[in-house]
Amino acid sequence: MSSLSLDVLTIGNAIVDVIARTDEAFLAAHGMPKGSMTLIDEAQAETLYGAMGPGLEISGGSAANTAAGAASLGARTGFIGKVRGDGLGGVFAHDIRAAGVAYATAAATDGPATARCLVLVTADGERTMNTYLGAAQNLTAAEIDAEMVRGAAITYLEGYLWDPPAAKEAFLTAARIAHDAGREVALTLSDAFCVGRYRSEFLDLMRTGVVDLVFCNEGELKALYETADVDSALIQLRRDVASAVVTRSEHGALFVTKDAVVSAPAFPVETVVDTTGAGDLFAAGFLAGRTRGLDPATCLRLGALAAAEVISHMGARPQKNLLDLARENGLIS
Amino acid sequence: MSSLSLDVLTIGNAIVDVIARTDEAFLAAHGMPKGSMTLIDEAQAETLYGAMGPGLEISGGSAANTAAGAASLGARTGFIGKVRGDGLGGVFAHDIRAAGVAYATAAATDGPATARCLVLVTADGERTMNTYLGAAQNLTAAEIDAEMVRGAAITYLEGYLWDPPAAKEAFLTAARIAHDAGREVALTLSDAFCVGRYRSEFLDLMRTGVVDLVFCNEGELKALYETADVDSALIQLRRDVASAVVTRSEHGALFVTKDAVVSAPAFPVETVVDTTGAGDLFAAGFLAGRTRGLDPATCLRLGALAAAEVISHMGARPQKNLLDLARENGLIS
Repeated sequence: MSSLSLDVLTIGNAIVDVIARTDEAFLAAHGMPKGSMTLIDEAQAETLYGAMGPGLEISGGSAANTAAGAASLGARTGFIGKVRGDGLGGVFAHDIRAAGVAYATAAATDGPATARCLVLVTADGERTMNTYLGAAQNLTAAEIDAEMVRGAAITYLEGYLWDPPAAKEAFLTAARIAHDAGREVALTLSDAFCVGRYRSEFLDLMRTGVVDLVFCNEGELKALYETADVDSALIQLRRDVASAVVTRSEHGALFVTKDAVVSAPAFPVETVVDTTGAGDLFAAGFLAGRTRGLDPATCLRLGALAAAEVISHMGARPQKNLLDLARENGLIS
Repeated sequence: MSSLSLDVLTIGNAIVDVIARTDEAFLAAHGMPKGSMTLIDEAQAETLYGAMGPGLEISGGSAANTAAGAASLGARTGFIGKVRGDGLGGVFAHDIRAAGVAYATAAATDGPATARCLVLVTADGERTMNTYLGAAQNLTAAEIDAEMVRGAAITYLEGYLWDPPAAKEAFLTAARIAHDAGREVALTLSDAFCVGRYRSEFLDLMRTGVVDLVFCNEGELKALYETADVDSALIQLRRDVASAVVTRSEHGALFVTKDAVVSAPAFPVETVVDTTGAGDLFAAGFLAGRTRGLDPATCLRLGALAAAEVISHMGARPQKNLLDLARENGLIS
C-alpha cells in the first residue's frame, strides 16, 4: 500500500455558485420545485440569470465544498473536477487552492464554459438550484490522478457526477483505484431528485460494494427506497451498505452500520440564512473526524458543527476557521 | 427645466468586489494600512489575488452601491460608469440592473479588463481595499448622458472619480450639466486617503459651488482641513459648502448647513461583519429621503438604517429590501 498523502480526496462537478435572494412567487412563475437541483443548458442559464436578482458569486460544487470544509478542519484534502480556463474557472481554482485543497485538474482550453449554479434563496433559507454543467461534464476517467487516489484515506464521490456520462466513468475508475489500494470509498446521494434519476444504479453501487460509506438526508433515503417510512428505509440501508450517515436537519444525524446505530444532535443555529452546502459541510466534518480516528458520535458532531456554520451565511464554503470552532466546542483537542 | 425622470443619478467607478477574510498579520506582511483604499495595477492585482484567501465576488463601486441602495428604498435611480464586456463586466451590468438602477454606459470592447477591488476584511469587520481600476478609468466626458443628468434631481459623484484623469473631466461635465438644469450636485469625499491626494481640488469644488452637498466621515473631514479637531473642521466645512452630511460611525451623523446643524443617532448593529459600503449606503438612505422631501433628521435616520443593514453582512449592496425595513422602523409611511 502506498503511503497516505491525503485524508480526503473528493471528486465532483467544479461549479461557481451565483446566489440571489428570491421569493416563492418567482419560483412558482418559473416552475421550479423548491429545494430542487435542475440541470439547465447555457441558453436557459442566460435567460434565468437575466430574470433573477442581484447575485453574489462564490465557489461551490458539492464535493468541492466538502473538500474546502474538511481542509478548514485541518484534514489534508484534494479535489478533482473540471473547469474551463475562463474567468469563473480562475475564480474556482483560486478559491479551492486558497482553501488549502490540492487541486491539479487541467482547465479545458476550449469547449463549454465553467459550470455555474444559479442558486435562488427564499426567505426561509431554502435554496433552489439550476445548474449549467458546462466544462464540468467533460471530466473523464483519464483525469483521475491515480497516485492521488491511492494516497487518500477516503475518496468521496458526489452523486451529481452521475449526470454527465463521461464523469460517471471517472467515478467508477476512481472507486476501483481506491479499493485496489485498500482505501475507503464514500458517496453522497446529493439530492432526492438525483436519487430519483439514478436510484437503481446507486443501489447497485452500494450492494456490489463499489461504495463503503453513504451520505444522505432523510429525503434522499426515502427516495432511494421509494417509501415514506424512514425506519423501514433505514433497515434496508443497513443491509445494503457497510456504513452510512443519515442527516435529519434540526433533528441531528445518525451513523449506521450493520451492527450499530449512533446518533448525535444538531447544533443550534440562530438564523438559517442559506441552506446551500449543509449536506456538503456535514460530510466534511464527519470525514475530517473519521480520518483523525475520532469515534462516530464525535464525527457526527463535527459534521453538525460544520453544517451549522455554513447555513448561517450565504454561500456553501465555510467563512470561519472550522478547526478553531471545533476546538472552542471541545470536539477536537 | 426638463421634467424629472430620476431622483438620484450616481457616477463612479464600475467595480466588482472580490472579498476575502484576512488577519492583521496579512495586512502587515503586505504593507497595507488598515482601512485604506490603494490603487494597484493588473500585475499587482494578480499577485495579491494569488496570495489572498477564498473570495466572494459581488458587485461594488462606491457610487454604484449608493444607486443600488437608493433604488432599494424606492428612489428612481441611474448609474454611469464603465466596464469592459468581459465576465465581470457582465456581472456588474446584471447586478446593477437587477437592483432596479437604470444603467446604459456602453461596455468597452477592448482595453483593460473590468475593474475589481480586492477587499480584505479583518475580524473586526474593517475592510482594506486594493483597487485595479481597469476599464473604469476610461470613462470620458462623452459618456455622460446629458439627458439623464438633466432629468435627475440629484447627481451624486464619488471622489474616487478624481483618480482616473479622463473621469475627472466626466465628473466636471456632469456637474455643469446638472447645474445648468437647476439640479443639485453631491460629492462624497470617498476616503481619507483620497482626500489626502486631492484636498485642495476638493476644497476648490466646494468653494466655487461645483458641489452643493458633501458627504464625508470624520476621518475624511479631518483630512480635508488637516486638523485633528473635528469641531473646528465643522466650522470650516459649513463655510465652504452649502450643505454636508458628516457620518460618525456608532455616534450617528450630522447634517450641516450655514444656518443649522441636525443630528441623528446610529442604528444598533448586533455584529459588524464587513464595513464595506457603510458610507455608500448612508448616502443612499439620505438621498432617497431627501428626494422624497423628508426632513433632514429623517433623511439621516434612513442613512443610518441603510448603513446598519449593509455592515451586518459581507458585501456593499443591500441584501434586504430597504423600503420594507424603513417602513418597519416608521421612517417612511
